[in-house]
Amino acid sequence: MLTYSLLLIGVVFSGIAISSQNITSPPSKYGIVVFPGFQALDVFGPLDVLNMLSLEVDIDLVVLAATKDPVSTRTPRARPGTSFAESLAITHTFEDAPKDLEVLLIPGGYGTRVLNQTAPVREYIKKVFPNLRYVITVCTGAGLFARTGLLDGRRATGNKKYWDWVVSQGPKVQWVPKARWVEDETAGQIPIWTSSGVSAGLDVTFAFVKKHYGEDIASGIANTLEYERHLDSTWDPFSAVWNATWNPKS
Amino acid sequence: MLTYSLLLIGVVFSGIAISSQNITSPPSKYGIVVFPGFQALDVFGPLDVLNMLSLEVDIDLVVLAATKDPVSTRTPRARPGTSFAESLAITHTFEDAPKDLEVLLIPGGYGTRVLNQTAPVREYIKKVFPNLRYVITVCTGAGLFARTGLLDGRRATGNKKYWDWVVSQGPKVQWVPKARWVEDETAGQIPIWTSSGVSAGLDVTFAFVKKHYGEDIASGIANTLEYERHLDSTWDPFSAVWNATWNPKS
Repeated sequence: MLTYSLLLIGVVFSGIAISSQNITSPPSKYGIVVFPGFQALDVFGPLDVLNMLSLEVDIDLVVLAATKDPVSTRTPRARPGTSFAESLAITHTFEDAPKDLEVLLIPGGYGTRVLNQTAPVREYIKKVFPNLRYVITVCTGAGLFARTGLLDGRRATGNKKYWDWVVSQGPKVQWVPKARWVEDETAGQIPIWTSSGVSAGLDVTFAFVKKHYGEDIASGIANTLEYERHLDSTWDPFSAVWNATWNPKS
Repeated sequence: MLTYSLLLIGVVFSGIAISSQNITSPPSKYGIVVFPGFQALDVFGPLDVLNMLSLEVDIDLVVLAATKDPVSTRTPRARPGTSFAESLAITHTFEDAPKDLEVLLIPGGYGTRVLNQTAPVREYIKKVFPNLRYVITVCTGAGLFARTGLLDGRRATGNKKYWDWVVSQGPKVQWVPKARWVEDETAGQIPIWTSSGVSAGLDVTFAFVKKHYGEDIASGIANTLEYERHLDSTWDPFSAVWNATWNPKS
């Protein structure tokens, strides 16, 4: 009976230990979704911060899309006859994505507005969301994400030039019109970090790295990238530039 | 005889017109060289500025490497067993690159230090250089470029964390230890724009766009990317952070 009790206590404590590790240890498994017409800096601002983090701690990345074909930044807005675009190689499709992702990055770009092309992205996000630990969106990626309904009731921000479109994708979201980024860590829910347009992806990623891996690592990476971080999440001159000052809830 | 004279005048004026266009019209044909272990933001900071420019004016891009295989950011510094990296699709090899490039972008990254892998990049640069209109380097890309000898006698800057390595690649370069970027437009020579580490590539590209396409376009792109530009080329807190204050000529 004593043996059984000790065994039981051992099991219970192991469970607590594992659970505690799952909740508090820094995440190590990252994925990013891409689609035709993604914004290059939405993707490579965050990823280059994390590329540098990957030299300090063991983290992995998968680059996900509907098919294994390279995905181009080119959008329907491109000028006819011109060739300015870049294509990113894909490591996994939404079908064969690993099941143990912890952090999902959702970039934006004009391609978010091509709804038939982003439909598979939204389906994948809906499927994987309950098993994630964190979501980070950049730019109009907040609109793409909001359209899944998974942002409903949460605080979020997004691209300011296309603010009207972003907020139209999630009428039940608590949109914050003046913010470089918004961290919504509502108790009992998966934390969601949303950022403003394009280059704001660098700042939200630095804030995320600071919170989960420490300021020494975050500032070290910023110095390596020779990047002057915006450390105040409410810094947002572009809200006024684009007259994106309205909140559909107010 | 009159006809002949008019024809001659026409030829002469056409020649002037073409020459004038070549010298003063904004460039439209861009290329970027990549190699294993390039720094993602060195590439995608400048390219995303130019992606946005490509929506305003007709410009083209080729992405060049030794072979047509996608090129990865992964470097020998990567932690064993981890997978954090991205791969960029290549549009042309150095062999089949178009002959009419006007602007060549040279990024940096840890891969610049792997000299056998960058040898084909340097050979290509030496071959194409005389026909270019502009060169823009980012980060340790200045070191890669300096090793060709083509920076000798010119003013230039580069990555501050790896300043010692950068300057060691070009003992005859007039290195500027405190600069976000340096524009060397020595009369009669191909203008060379060099920038400091990683994120400085954004600022040098904005400065280049401002000079050649105008401030309205440059500021419009900055507002679209929600990027707060550093407009002062001498702004460089990272020179002191990394103690990169020395100039081998002084």
